[in-house]
Amino acid sequence: MKQYREELWFNTTTRRAYLNITPQVEAAVRQSGVREGLVLVNAMHITASVYINDDERRAYLNITPQVEAAVRQSGVREGLVLVNAMHITASVYINDDERGLLQDYDDFLERVAPHEAEYRHNLTGEDNGDAHIKRQVMGREVVVAITNGKLDFGPWEQIFYGEFDGRRKKRVLVKVIGE
Amino acid sequence: MKQYREELWFNTTTRRAYLNITPQVEAAVRQSGVREGLVLVNAMHITASVYINDDERRAYLNITPQVEAAVRQSGVREGLVLVNAMHITASVYINDDERGLLQDYDDFLERVAPHEAEYRHNLTGEDNGDAHIKRQVMGREVVVAITNGKLDFGPWEQIFYGEFDGRRKKRVLVKVIGE
Amino acid sequence: MKQYREELWFNTTTRRAYLNITPQVEAAVRQSGVREGLVLVNAMHITASVYINDDERRAYLNITPQVEAAVRQSGVREGLVLVNAMHITASVYINDDERGLLQDYDDFLERVAPHEAEYRHNLTGEDNGDAHIKRQVMGREVVVAITNGKLDFGPWEQIFYGEFDGRRKKRVLVKVIGE
Repeated sequence: MKQYREELWFNTTTRRAYLNITPQVEAAVRQSGVREGLVLVNAMHITASVYINDDERRAYLNITPQVEAAVRQSGVREGLVLVNAMHITASVYINDDERGLLQDYDDFLERVAPHEAEYRHNLTGEDNGDAHIKRQVMGREVVVAITNGKLDFGPWEQIFYGEFDGRRKKRVLVKVIGE
Repeated sequence: MKQYREELWFNTTTRRAYLNITPQVEAAVRQSGVREGLVLVNAMHITASVYINDDERRAYLNITPQVEAAVRQSGVREGLVLVNAMHITASVYINDDERGLLQDYDDFLERVAPHEAEYRHNLTGEDNGDAHIKRQVMGREVVVAITNGKLDFGPWEQIFYGEFDGRRKKRVLVKVIGE
Repeated sequence: MKQYREELWFNTTTRRAYLNITPQVEAAVRQSGVREGLVLVNAMHITASVYINDDERRAYLNITPQVEAAVRQSGVREGLVLVNAMHITASVYINDDERGLLQDYDDFLERVAPHEAEYRHNLTGEDNGDAHIKRQVMGREVVVAITNGKLDFGPWEQIFYGEFDGRRKKRVLVKVIGE
């Protein structure tokens, strides 16, 4: 029984990188001389980030294209993708990309947790007590199925980043698992 | 070293199907003549759908049996199941199947986002601005652990589909991953 | 081709146990006499529980250390951890561990669903109709990415158990999947 082992090393200059390693695996198979057998490549897990930097205190941004890009580049065909805000005054949620609806959400959130109300949290010197509540109401994360290499979406589902305390750089985590 | 490779093809007439392929795998092993070794079967991933069609605008339906059936048929013993509404005016959530509680939820949601209030979204010709908000409050999805082949539930946990803009056919996605 | 198969059996006296089985796997490899090859160990899946027992009706408890311990002990380097309340009057959520904020959450939840209001659910003899609503607003579960063996957290993310009908023993499920 022939055996062959090779480690592939990568040196990326960016935090995120999506590398097609098929040629390296094919080269390793040729190098091994094995004609019939199995090749084990450590399962791919992709962790990507989407950076947000908005001028407004509150904003609702459609980040579906960025998530689709991460899924496409991961090569995962069947699995799950977790998309979550990494900041605790922001949400990732799924709903319609309709301008009136985004304003309705903002009105609703201002009604249940107004920015100008009094919050004990603001006694620490912060002014974002409302944003911590708005984020809980809208949620932190979504988990979306990946089927046949694509986000398994209903007809109008779009992934949104809801910012409730913006005007600084924020990060969204995209974690793809599967095969 | 003996080797044997076989592709199993299936032709199903329904969108969803749950097929026990143990006999085919056993037949392939017999056919291979291998007495000691490994058989690699591509990991099972099950994507199922539950269809909802309710006469009421708002309804709260216990879909636990359908999710349990998908998990059972998937053959997954350890893993996760994602259950999510594919429509953006509906929720999948977990709570008690108690008639009074379902009415309490409905009262609460009507209080925080009444159907008859004004919504910018309704200027598009829709009348479901409230439903988009109700769904956000109740959530889009649940992720449930599968342990020993069963939904790893607390004592009263039941999976519900919350419809806030019904009277048409809707779909719930059930995605099982694991092994 | 040499082959060797061994089953490892464990007998634990506690519901949860985290066992380092590297020595047993190394012993099995030595025993097999195989010098070059593959060893297949069934993928690790860890299901752990965190028990909660608080004297207050409502409480907000930081359970991050317990979740981190489960992830560390699972040995999973890349994957997901699901943390969910197993009781339907409690939440698991992620936000800041700041005392004023916890009080703001409690004030907000009492405002939208007061304990002393009337609930149909309470006609069953319960007095926790409000708790079922509070839990829906705050959510049942979180899914957190595991990257390089650690919870892939933003700067202030902490995992909280929110109790809305306490004074009895409750359980939180921690399910780690990955590799």
